[in-house]
Amino acid sequence: MRMRKKKNCGVRLEKSGELWIRKPEKLRGCWDKEFGNNNPIQIEIGCGKGMFITEMAKKYPNINFVAVEIVPDIMVLAIEKALPMGLKNIRFIISDAAMLADCFDKGEVKRIYLNFSDPWKKNKQAKRRLTHKNFLEVYKKLLNNGDGICFKTDNLKLFEFSLNSFAQENFKMSDITFDLHKSKFAEENVMTEYETRFTEQGMPIYRVCAKYIGWQDE
Amino acid sequence: MRMRKKKNCGVRLEKSGELWIRKPEKLRGCWDKEFGNNNPIQIEIGCGKGMFITEMAKKYPNINFVAVEIVPDIMVLAIEKALPMGLKNIRFIISDAAMLADCFDKGEVKRIYLNFSDPWKKNKQAKRRLTHKNFLEVYKKLLNNGDGICFKTDNLKLFEFSLNSFAQENFKMSDITFDLHKSKFAEENVMTEYETRFTEQGMPIYRVCAKYIGWQDE
Repeated sequence: MRMRKKKNCGVRLEKSGELWIRKPEKLRGCWDKEFGNNNPIQIEIGCGKGMFITEMAKKYPNINFVAVEIVPDIMVLAIEKALPMGLKNIRFIISDAAMLADCFDKGEVKRIYLNFSDPWKKNKQAKRRLTHKNFLEVYKKLLNNGDGICFKTDNLKLFEFSLNSFAQENFKMSDITFDLHKSKFAEENVMTEYETRFTEQGMPIYRVCAKYIGWQDE
Repeated sequence: MRMRKKKNCGVRLEKSGELWIRKPEKLRGCWDKEFGNNNPIQIEIGCGKGMFITEMAKKYPNINFVAVEIVPDIMVLAIEKALPMGLKNIRFIISDAAMLADCFDKGEVKRIYLNFSDPWKKNKQAKRRLTHKNFLEVYKKLLNNGDGICFKTDNLKLFEFSLNSFAQENFKMSDITFDLHKSKFAEENVMTEYETRFTEQGMPIYRVCAKYIGWQDE
């Protein structure tokens, strides 16, 4: 997501209180203490303006959510959405997806959400796609066997790439749909900002779940 | 494929010579003797009018092909296509896909082609789809670990169903494409009658390969 630079981003971030974790590396292995309970942790990589993760946190109070965003100017909007909601089960971190194993211990994350990630359309940009095998290797360091990833996109090319990538890396896929909003999964689906717009335009949303199994030689 | 009953189907089938195997159960475990060599065997389930399998047999003389078709009236057309080509590496059998383990021993088939199978669109017809888990169980009886299925279709709903079915049954997928004729696999692709027509109309063809791995508890 590209957007104009936010005014006073730094000042506004400072108003985040406990929601913004300045040094997530220090919480590696002890996120339960940060949240004050042992509830499972789910993360969204690329939370954007935060509609999805804040709605999830509101809907599932017994799950802890960590929103990951690499662009502070965007994350501040998500935090400002979360603050007035008074949510206790959500935190925000500024991080590159590639560095997440520095922030979470093996098994500390129960589910990863990838929503409308940048498709990086050119072939030479494939390594930047958040479902590239290099990123899947990072996610394996966060997840235990049986834990998984939920991925949705409006981009068919990225979806094709991602299905192949999950298969290649021995993730067990399920709940594949080429039209999420007309599928049996529509009712429980929580939307992102993008998704609301795309869906209003009648565009299909593609979705897959992929479980890390640790088959074979892993 | 529905078509008018062929005139003199029985008589025409009798002219098939050695290409039509009347009692395929008798060749179970000894197809190599029938072909006179140990070349790998690939089968197409639902060969229709035979364009795909005869082209394959011509293109790959060191692979043996068995065309499976449940409707004699259609199979006779495929055989009449193969006869003047003088192919030595092709045979035809009339069989229900569900009965194929009676015709082939475990490991006797190296690859299964499913091309433009009937989508059986109604939910209550799901069990008839050739990628339904019940059929995948049959295919596992023909294949060794690492052998696989190539599946292509123009029907997105059937493709979605099939991807979920393969994943659920622990087939390892690869080479998933949502537009076969614009993909890197286009050049080596051999077309069916249907495919020629659909492609002329500019419709995308969906394709996936699925290897039987025998993971986990199998």
